[in-house]
Amino acid sequence: MTIAELMKKRRTIRRYGTSTISRQLINRIVEAASYAPSGLNRQPWFFVALSNSDLKERIREKCEGCERRFHKQVKGSFKESLSFFGLSPAKSFLTEAPYLIVVFAKKDEPYWRESVWISIGYAILRIEEEGLASLTYTPPKMSFLNEMLKVSKSYEAVAILPVGYADEEVDLGKRRRKSTHQLLKFID
Amino acid sequence: MTIAELMKKRRTIRRYGTSTISRQLINRIVEAASYAPSGLNRQPWFFVALSNSDLKERIREKCEGCERRFHKQVKGSFKESLSFFGLSPAKSFLTEAPYLIVVFAKKDEPYWRESVWISIGYAILRIEEEGLASLTYTPPKMSFLNEMLKVSKSYEAVAILPVGYADEEVDLGKRRRKSTHQLLKFID
Repeated sequence: MTIAELMKKRRTIRRYGTSTISRQLINRIVEAASYAPSGLNRQPWFFVALSNSDLKERIREKCEGCERRFHKQVKGSFKESLSFFGLSPAKSFLTEAPYLIVVFAKKDEPYWRESVWISIGYAILRIEEEGLASLTYTPPKMSFLNEMLKVSKSYEAVAILPVGYADEEVDLGKRRRKSTHQLLKFID
Repeated sequence: MTIAELMKKRRTIRRYGTSTISRQLINRIVEAASYAPSGLNRQPWFFVALSNSDLKERIREKCEGCERRFHKQVKGSFKESLSFFGLSPAKSFLTEAPYLIVVFAKKDEPYWRESVWISIGYAILRIEEEGLASLTYTPPKMSFLNEMLKVSKSYEAVAILPVGYADEEVDLGKRRRKSTHQLLKFID
């Protein structure tokens, strides 16, 4: 399969089967992420992969608490979009997925945010290539993850990627996407 | 070639040959970028692809001016890194590359910065798959690009991607990269 095909068929997945996945697989995903270009090649990323059920429960509890507060205060078109996508404060994928990869970025490096999000792009494509599913989840608050996962405060958690086998049907026709001519202007 | 191999062999390229590339190729690259996931699927990106020589000259001139001011004030380990990589204010790739893709992001969308950098990750991999080269260039200042390229102020330029054929040898062994075990902690 070409990379273009892989990009086209990848979808964000919110329901995961409980089949376990190996550490080797996680290693391959993080290795791929580490090949992303970064500001001055500082590679400002760090990954915690966790399969521990207690920890996943605690993370889910914390995130759902933040989500409930967030959903209460959100307004306007953002609120409509949340309901259009059926997004609620419940984040079952945080305990269903066999692994969560928590992505941290070192805040004092140049272009740390830009770099780490390219690496997340690499990770999710590598996950897709392995026949696995993922989601780039950004909880409203993430600072609790430093303490919980014992990661230095010089790193900031930027996303949680659940990784596992999809337990929902993907309708490849369903996604609304702007066409290339809406997105691209040529000046020749 | 697998996507893992593509990620591994991709390098940032600073010298470009003058061979032209087609609009079709640029379309394919932007199409790939548009398959990136985005916050609430808002697809907060816009791309201007330019091959016009006058415009490339003017962009280069502006960027090199900003770079000279930036290089004068930069200090410490950041300055050392710039010299380690041989980075100077001269940005010849801005006029050498047959196309520049200027990437804009719509600032009022949720997670616009995160989303657009994933899409840049998609774009550079698609460029690599086509046998072309690129660089994620982030000039110190980019606001002049809105006026120059006639793009609404609700969008912010986040990067310029020169696209073309590499005119330098890539030493695949050369890149210093942290090993996966330095980057990844398991909690099982």
